This record gives sequence, C-alpha cells and structure tokens, in this order.
Amino acid sequence: MNYNISLIPGDGIGPEIVAEAKKALDKVCEKYGHSFSYSEVLLGGASIDVHGVPLTEEAIATAKASDAVLMGSIGGDAKTSPWYKLEPSKRPEAGLLAIRKALNLFANLRPAYLYNELRAACPLRDEIIGDGFDMIIVRELTGGLYFGERKTIEENGVAKAIDTLSYNENEIRRIAIKAFDIAMKRRKKVTSVDKANVLDSSRLWRKVVEEVAKDYPEVTLEHMLVDNCAMQLVRDPKQFDVILTENMFGDILSDEASMVTGSIGMLSSASLNETKFGLYEPSHGSAPDIAGQNKANPIATILSAAMMLRFSLDLDEEANAVEAAVQKVLTAGYRTGDIMSEGCTLVGTKEMGDLIAKEI
Amino acid sequence: MNYNISLIPGDGIGPEIVAEAKKALDKVCEKYGHSFSYSEVLLGGASIDVHGVPLTEEAIATAKASDAVLMGSIGGDAKTSPWYKLEPSKRPEAGLLAIRKALNLFANLRPAYLYNELRAACPLRDEIIGDGFDMIIVRELTGGLYFGERKTIEENGVAKAIDTLSYNENEIRRIAIKAFDIAMKRRKKVTSVDKANVLDSSRLWRKVVEEVAKDYPEVTLEHMLVDNCAMQLVRDPKQFDVILTENMFGDILSDEASMVTGSIGMLSSASLNETKFGLYEPSHGSAPDIAGQNKANPIATILSAAMMLRFSLDLDEEANAVEAAVQKVLTAGYRTGDIMSEGCTLVGTKEMGDLIAKEI
Ligand SMILES: CC(C)[C@H](C(=O)O)[C@@H](O)C(=O)O
Ligand SMILES: CC(C)[C@H](C(=O)O)[C@@H](O)C(=O)O
Repeated sequence: MNYNISLIPGDGIGPEIVAEAKKALDKVCEKYGHSFSYSEVLLGGASIDVHGVPLTEEAIATAKASDAVLMGSIGGDAKTSPWYKLEPSKRPEAGLLAIRKALNLFANLRPAYLYNELRAACPLRDEIIGDGFDMIIVRELTGGLYFGERKTIEENGVAKAIDTLSYNENEIRRIAIKAFDIAMKRRKKVTSVDKANVLDSSRLWRKVVEEVAKDYPEVTLEHMLVDNCAMQLVRDPKQFDVILTENMFGDILSDEASMVTGSIGMLSSASLNETKFGLYEPSHGSAPDIAGQNKANPIATILSAAMMLRFSLDLDEEANAVEAAVQKVLTAGYRTGDIMSEGCTLVGTKEMGDLIAKEI
Repeated sequence: MNYNISLIPGDGIGPEIVAEAKKALDKVCEKYGHSFSYSEVLLGGASIDVHGVPLTEEAIATAKASDAVLMGSIGGDAKTSPWYKLEPSKRPEAGLLAIRKALNLFANLRPAYLYNELRAACPLRDEIIGDGFDMIIVRELTGGLYFGERKTIEENGVAKAIDTLSYNENEIRRIAIKAFDIAMKRRKKVTSVDKANVLDSSRLWRKVVEEVAKDYPEVTLEHMLVDNCAMQLVRDPKQFDVILTENMFGDILSDEASMVTGSIGMLSSASLNETKFGLYEPSHGSAPDIAGQNKANPIATILSAAMMLRFSLDLDEEANAVEAAVQKVLTAGYRTGDIMSEGCTLVGTKEMGDLIAKEI
C-alpha cells in the first residue's frame, strides 16, 4: 500500500537520526511491497531559520494531510543558539507545543524499558533491576499547565506571573481510556499519578479515572502521589506497568523513568489523537553538542518508526520486523557511543542505521 | 538558656520518633545547661481526632509563641483511615499546608546526602556514587500551585477543575537569597530549576534569580529544566550542590533526591520564615504501616532537632554534638530495620534514641 508520511528532521542530531529511520522504512517498503511518500515538514529551529517562526500553517496542513508524522528532535543549545534570543513564544519548543495542539495529539505514550543488553548502562544496582523493567508512561499532552492561560502583570509595582492548570472531565476521560486500553494488552495494571492532596485538578482526575476503571474490571488501578512516584521510580521501577498522568507530571516522570532505564538513546514515543494519526519521535533531545558528527544513536528514532508502523499504519508485521532487526544488531554487539560497553563494537549513526536496515 | 519549643508528634510513627528526638534534646540541656520548655501542638490526624479539624487557631498561636517547632509526621493510610473520608480541606495534610502558610515558612531546606555507612542502601551503582553526594534542595514553600486559587466548576454540564500557579518577584527573591546564602557556606553552586520553556512563572523565576545572583559573584548559577533535573538526579547526583526551585517542583525533586541517596530515614528538613523561626521535621512520611511497633528510624527527626538547634536557637556546638552522636552510633554499627545491612546490629526506635542520647 501507499502511505503519506511527514518527516520532521528538526534540529541538532534530528536530521541524522531521521535519515537512519528512513533507511529502515525504505527497507520495509522494499521487503513488504509498500510505498511511502515523504513530505518534509519544518519545525522548531529549522523552521525559524527559514520562516522566522517555529511552525507555519503550511507545515500544520502538510502534517495533517499525511497518515503519520515521524520526527527527529527540536531545539538547540539555549546558551549559544540565536533562536533563544527570540521571545519564548517564538522559540523552537513553542513550535513543538503548537503542533501537538494543532494536531490534537492528546495521548503521549513513552515506553521505558531496560534492554537486557544494556543492563550495565542502567544506573540502578543489579538487585533493583532484578529481571528488568518494562513500563509505559501515558502522559496527557494537550492540557494542564502547558496550555492554560498565562500572563505576567504588575501589581503595585511588583511583577507577578500566573499560569493556569485546568482539566475537564472529557480531557481526563479520553487519556484514561487510552491508558486502560494499553494496560489490557500488557500486565493489566494502571498507576494513576496525581497530587490529589493539594490540587483540585488532581481530585477531578482521580474521580474520572475511577469511573473509567469500572469499564475495565480486569485492570488493577492504583493511585499514587507524584512525589511518591518520583521516589518509587528509583526505589523499585519493577512495580510499574502503565503510569497514567497529566501533562507536567508526565514530562518530569517520563524523563526520570527513561533515565532510570539507562536506555534513553533507545526509547521511542508516540503522540496520538482520537484517530489512528500520530506523531512519533525519540524520547531523547536534540543533543546539539554532537550534531553532525555521526555519533548520535538512531535507535530511538528507528523504534519510533516501528511504533508508527504499528499504531498509525496497522502494519504490525512490519513493525515487528524493525524491532527484531534492532534486537539482532544489539545482540551482535554493535553500539553507538552512548551505549558502548566493553567487548562491543563501536559504530557511528550511519553504520548503525545500515546494520539495522540490513537485518529487516 | 531557656527556650520554648513546640512539639508536634503528629500521626503514624510521629509520636515515637519525636519522643526520641526529645531524649536527645534533654541530653543537650543536661550537658550544656539549657532548659527547654515544651508545648505539645496538635496537627493533622491527631488534631482531627480531638478538634475535628487538622489545625486550630490555638495550635497556630502556641507554635508562633515558641522559638521553634519540632514535628514528627502527619497523615495516615489514605485507604483505610477515617480521616480520608473528610473533604480534602479537612484532611491531615491540609493542616500541614495551613501551618506553613500561617507561620510564613517560605523556605524549605531539604539536605540530601549519602551516608558513607549506608552506601549499600543507595539504589545507584558504585560508579555513579563515586565519592558520594551531598546536596540541599531549597524549595519555595508558601506559593505556587499549593496556594493559588482553585475551583471546580461546570461548563456546559462538564466538570472542570482549575488550579493556579503564581509567583511574584518578592516571593522569588527571598527564596533565591536563601539559596545563595546557603551556597556561600557550601560549594558555591546554585542550580535553579524551572520550566522556563513553558511557564510564565518560570520565566519570571529565572529573571529574578539572575538578578539575585549578581549580588553573589562567587556563586556559580546554572539553570536547569525540571524534566532534565529529574533525569540528572539519577544520572549524576554528584553535580548538584544547592538546588533552588518552586513549590511543586521542589516537592517532586526533593523526594526523588532523598530516595536517590538511599538514606531517606536519615534526612532532616527545615522550613523557615524571614526570622530565625522554623519548623523542623524528617523528610520521610508517617509510615502508618509500622506505627507503634518500635521499628521506625528516629534519626531523621533527631537530625531535624539538630538543625533546629543550629538555625533557630543559634546553638551550633550543641547541634554539632547531636550530629556527631548520630555518626558515632552509625559507625558503631547500630541500625534500624530500614537501613539494616549485614554485619550490623539491629535495634528498635527506642534503643536507637537511647544510643544516640548516650553519645551526646
Ligand atoms: C520541549 C518541551 C516543551 C517538551 C515538553 O515539556 O513537553 C519536552 O520536554 C518533551 O517532553 O517533549
Ligand atoms: C503532605 C503534602 C501536602 C506535602 C507537600 O506536598 O508539600 C509533603 O509531600 C511534603 O513534601 O512535605
């Protein structure tokens, strides 16, 4: 079949890692008889450089017209990049927030698991790792503090800044349903994370999540306060299957969880709307310090492409093939610098991409 | 000299651990010729049981009239305790928030360090621990989402909950000054944590922190995004000296940091106002599951008492004596269950308190 894919190379290492994911997709086409038409979409710094703004209407239209979006990473070095002289709403990150909202990508799925081959890279002790861990963070992505009203005012000559955190029932319900649906295909446990001892929005969150849970009698629901969750991710990450949480807590906890696995260069993510449409990107950032040096690990982006095949294009077999290829290359001992360990073979971004494409 | 101390035993293991801290203080009085007058103050569940509310005006007045407040812990098991049938504003935790506000305790200091004796309890690998770590979180405690307006409304038949995050310049300045003052007595590095790529309040935060930094040319200031900080605490906690952040981020990061050290039963905290007055409490919670069993570790509370001696009563020598006593007992190999390891001697709450008091 033919599919339309939007590619967002983005900034920093983005173009390099997206190029490797494209190699994998090309191989999938060849092997399974599909054809993918690619449209390049500018976002973030790359868009500022050309259009002066981090996201254009045209870019949104192109993304919307495609079956799925595959992205590298956006943003640069905040200390040195000229993009950060612009006001906040015109910076690269604002483009990412704007595209999430424009495409209604309310469900951000961030798997965090430990690759058996990379146990030594996990910062936690072997006793804590045990048989390894495998969780997925389901983060609400278009509400909360990220998209509430905000303003900076003067009150009696004193500057005051205000941000608003709001959620309505419907926003909570749809993300909760996503989390429970995902849990049904996994170990059937949802940990809903909030700060219900302080926030009204968390109390509504808890109530709606409990309502949704009634439709999933097989799934065990547990509530956890966000401060406790930040501890538990370090103390015993094995306890988690699906973590369901709001936008800001999800931002913090998903980064913590991916670092806890020690596999951050390996972790993919998907941001989905109510249909099959989604934007797929690695969980890691744009690493401007190593951009253009053929050093970046393309695996998270390649695995994001696999997620895209599975979730947006319904190509399960193809997705499995990509994942299996990654596994084979790891088993064969090839590593980029970020995951290198003794006895393994160090390869660059391109070589890693070639090796994986070859195995598909 | 004579000092007036308010004691808040609180809930769960609170009364047991406060009793042991009192033993240490009694010994300090005996040895250094001070006298402490204690007033017991009810807070949290203990206050609900007696007065129906988690904090009374009378309790506030007693605390205010004293030189410092030493607290155990508040709250119970949210699943089984009758306190959690009450509406949120009447629950134990609401009492803690209310006393913070009533006493204007805007500066929450949470040291997070690794006890050399407890290296094996640290969840991180030895390579990451290296020579150990020693940081302090300076958390703003009376602003932000915790104390902003909140409401739950209906909009076209759909429930919607709103919380407000606001900070003004003055609130940011006073906590930043605290952090820089503390850094001057330490390794002279402040990491200010915010989410300036999203929040107006974080952008104001960053601006004011930079202004304050100008008065401390010897201190290195670094800004870090909260999601990145949650990662860095796991990846390389050694990099931190003083972490300065707002209320909610501080709640999450300080719990993560204390768990990362593996020494959570050992970590004290202070909540200070603009004067020398403060409320001192362990960083851990009320552990209702082991309450009344002589199992709780009293060390965090004893060290909180030492912080009280130092910060509120200006009794540096006495504070040092308490800390040295704790160190001696650890070196001698005595451990409560939470920090027990092979070759050490297991003791209960009371025995640990006795051992420490004896060494003062
Ligand atoms: C770049 C930033 C706005 C973004 C976020 O906070 O959502 C990033 O941290 C992420 O998690 O995708
Ligand atoms: C009990 C709760 C309201 C409190 C907070 O969130 O501040 C606690 O977690 C803490 O950190 O002291």
